[in-house]
Amino acid sequence: MLAEIITIGDEILIGQIVDTNSAWMARELNKIGIRVKQISSVSDDKDHILKALAEAATRAKIIFITGGLGPTKDDITKKTLAEYFGVGFVENKEALENVERIFAKYNRPLLDVNRLQAQVPANCEIILNKNGTAPGMWFNHEGVIYISMPGVPFEMMYMMEGEVLPKIMANFKLPSIIHTTLLTVGEGESFLAERIADIENELPPYIKLAYLPKLGQVRLRLSAFGEDEESLQKQVDIFAGKIIERIGAVFVVDKDIALEKAILDKMTERGLTLSIAESCTGGYISHLFTQHPGSSKVFLGGGVTYSNGLKEHILGVKHQTIEQFGAVSEQTVKEMVDGALLNFKSDFAISVTGVAGPDGGTVDKPVGTVWIAVSGMGKMLIKKYTFGNKRQQNIERSAVMALSMLNTLLTEVAD
Amino acid sequence: MLAEIITIGDEILIGQIVDTNSAWMARELNKIGIRVKQISSVSDDKDHILKALAEAATRAKIIFITGGLGPTKDDITKKTLAEYFGVGFVENKEALENVERIFAKYNRPLLDVNRLQAQVPANCEIILNKNGTAPGMWFNHEGVIYISMPGVPFEMMYMMEGEVLPKIMANFKLPSIIHTTLLTVGEGESFLAERIADIENELPPYIKLAYLPKLGQVRLRLSAFGEDEESLQKQVDIFAGKIIERIGAVFVVDKDIALEKAILDKMTERGLTLSIAESCTGGYISHLFTQHPGSSKVFLGGGVTYSNGLKEHILGVKHQTIEQFGAVSEQTVKEMVDGALLNFKSDFAISVTGVAGPDGGTVDKPVGTVWIAVSGMGKMLIKKYTFGNKRQQNIERSAVMALSMLNTLLTEVAD
Repeated sequence: MLAEIITIGDEILIGQIVDTNSAWMARELNKIGIRVKQISSVSDDKDHILKALAEAATRAKIIFITGGLGPTKDDITKKTLAEYFGVGFVENKEALENVERIFAKYNRPLLDVNRLQAQVPANCEIILNKNGTAPGMWFNHEGVIYISMPGVPFEMMYMMEGEVLPKIMANFKLPSIIHTTLLTVGEGESFLAERIADIENELPPYIKLAYLPKLGQVRLRLSAFGEDEESLQKQVDIFAGKIIERIGAVFVVDKDIALEKAILDKMTERGLTLSIAESCTGGYISHLFTQHPGSSKVFLGGGVTYSNGLKEHILGVKHQTIEQFGAVSEQTVKEMVDGALLNFKSDFAISVTGVAGPDGGTVDKPVGTVWIAVSGMGKMLIKKYTFGNKRQQNIERSAVMALSMLNTLLTEVAD
Repeated sequence: MLAEIITIGDEILIGQIVDTNSAWMARELNKIGIRVKQISSVSDDKDHILKALAEAATRAKIIFITGGLGPTKDDITKKTLAEYFGVGFVENKEALENVERIFAKYNRPLLDVNRLQAQVPANCEIILNKNGTAPGMWFNHEGVIYISMPGVPFEMMYMMEGEVLPKIMANFKLPSIIHTTLLTVGEGESFLAERIADIENELPPYIKLAYLPKLGQVRLRLSAFGEDEESLQKQVDIFAGKIIERIGAVFVVDKDIALEKAILDKMTERGLTLSIAESCTGGYISHLFTQHPGSSKVFLGGGVTYSNGLKEHILGVKHQTIEQFGAVSEQTVKEMVDGALLNFKSDFAISVTGVAGPDGGTVDKPVGTVWIAVSGMGKMLIKKYTFGNKRQQNIERSAVMALSMLNTLLTEVAD
C-alpha cells in the first residue's frame, strides 16, 4: 500500500527547520508494510495545499498531513481541509475537554482562540492529542484516508504511535514485514559488507539486508516480506545468527536500540554502576544515558569538568599533571577516570578530554584530538582519537567511541 | 521569484536519511531573494520523476533537483532528464577530465561505468563537481531553469556556493526578502498572539508574521518581500520594535539563535561565568551550552548528581535535608544551587531536581514534578514546575524553563 506525506508550513520552505518528521513517519510506516510514494512540503497557502492534496490522492491510499494546526492566523490547514472536503465545522466535545484539561492543568484562562481548536470539519474522526491543544483528524473520503496531525514532533509521534498506526493496522490487511536489526560499533560499512558478502549473497529474494551507518555505528537491518510471519522470523533468525557469529566483537545487540541503552541493559542485568567525567563532551554522554527510563539504576552521576579548576576540584586531577602534560593528554584522562571511580564510587567510569573546536587547537593537539578512558573492575582502556574539525561531530563521535570502549571492557570483564 | 526543490531517491522515502539538503538550499535561496514554493521527495522511478518535473515547472521559474546521479543502476535522474527534454547524450570533455583527474588522484583504474558519468544530455551546461565524479547540469528549457546536482551534501553545497548561486544572481534581477526573528520564552503561542493582535493587524500585506512554537519557546518571524531592501528592513524593524516593547520580559533576543546561545552571548559580553548542578536533566543543560563554540568562556562545568550520594559529595547538600524533605524539594534544589556557586566558583549557577519518570513518582511528587533554582550576584529564583509524564519532554521542558529563569535573573541583575 502506498502513502504520501504532506508537510504544511513556511518554516521548512525557508529552511528554518529541517523536516525530521517525514523521515520518522516513513520509517514507522515501512515497519508495518506501507511505502511512502512522495513527500511534499508546501506553504501555508490555501490553493497550494488544495492542489497538493488532490495530486497526492491520485497516487496514494493514505495521506499524512502535518503542520498548520496552531491557533494563530497563519495556520490554515483545518479550514483548507474543510474546503477540500466541502464540509462545515462542528465543535468536538472530546477535543474541547482536552483543551480545557490542558488549560486547567497549567492554571491558564481558556481564550476563544483556544476554544476554536475544538472546532473540526464535520466529516472527521478526532485523534486525541494528549500533548497539545490541536486535535488530530482522520478523514475517509472517496476511498482515500487523510490524517492531519500537528507539526510539533512529539505531538505527532505520540499520536502516530498511540492511535494512528494501530488504527491503520486495524483497518487494512497489510503484508507481514519482519525487521531484525543488529547493532554494531567500531567497524566501517564497507569492511562489514566485505566480511559478510557471502552470507548476503545467500539471502533469499524476500529478505533484504540494509546497512544503516551513523557515526561509528552501523545497523544491519534484515527485512523479510511475505505472508507467514512465523516462517519469515525463523529465516531471518538463521541469517542474523550467521552474521553475528561472523562479525564477532563489533556486534553489540540484536535490537534496534541506542548503543547506550544496550550498555544500560547489560549493566542493569549485572548490577553494575557507572559514573562519567566529561570535559569536551560537556554533558552529552551523561545526557545519552539519562534520557533512558531506569538509567538511575546504573548511572550514579558525574562531573562536567570543563575548566581545569573543576578537573582538579571535583576529580582530584593533580595540578601538576595538567601543567606538565596539558588537559588533553593521556595522563589527565587517566587521572580523570581514576578520580571518577574514587569520588563517585561507581563500578565503572568513563572519562573524556579533548579539543572539540573550532578554537583551542595547537600544532601538537589539533582540533579533533580526544583522549578517552574507560575503567572498572581492575581493567582500563585508554585511547587517543583524531577526529575532524566540526565541533558537534567531535562531541558525538567522542561519545560513540567512549560507549564502544565501555562495551568492549564490559565484554572483557564478563569472560 | 519562485523555486522548487525535487529530491530523488528512495533513502529519504524509507526514512533512512533525513533530508537536510533541502533546508540548507532553501536557506541559501532565501538569502538571495528566491522563495521555495514546494519541496518534493520522489522515488527512483522514471514516470514519477517526469510528473514531478512537469508539475514543478507550472509553479516555479527555477527547479533544483538533487540525487540519482550515481554510477549504479538505480540512479536514473540523468536519463530521465534527457527524456523530459527530448534530447540525446553527448560526452562532455570537461566532465571527463574531472573524472579522470579524480581517479588518477586515488590511483584507481577508470571503469566504463565511471567514464559514462561524463555523458550528459545534449542541451545542458555543465556545473563542475570538484568533489565527485557526477557533474552538475544546468538546463534552460522553455523559460524555466532546471539545475541537477548530486545528493551528497558537501558536493551539492560546494556546487551551489561556487557556481550555481553566482550564476543565478548574474542571470536574474532578484527581489529582496528580509527575515527578522524574535525569540521569546515562557509564554504560549495563543497568549502572545492575543497580546500583539493589533500590531499584527496593522502589518502591510508585504510583511508576514509567523509563530514558531517549540517547548515553551515561541519564535516570532517577520518576513518582508519587496524591491528595496533598505526600506523593507526599516519597516520590519519598526514592527519588531513594537512587538518587543509590547511583550516585555518574555522577549529574549532578536536573532534566530538557540535560547542557550542567547544567554551565552549575554554572559560572554558581561564576563560572567556559569556552573550547573543537574539531577533529573542528567547533563542535558550542560550539553546545550557546550555544543556552542566558545562556551568555555562562560561555562565552567558542573555536576550531574543523579544519586543522592553525589548530591551530598559533590555539591555539599546536607544528608539531613534529603532525609527530611526528599531529593525533589525546594530545600534540596536551594542547597544544590548554593553548593554549585560555592564549589564550582562561578558567578551564576543553575540547579534542577525532579522526577523525570516514567517511574519514581509518588502521590505528593508525581512524575513531572521538577524544582529549578537559579542564583547569582546575590539574587535567587526558585520555582516548582509540574510537567507531564513523558521523560524526554520533562527533561527538555526543565532545561528550557531553567534557561528562561536564568535569562530573567540576568535581566534583573542588569538593572
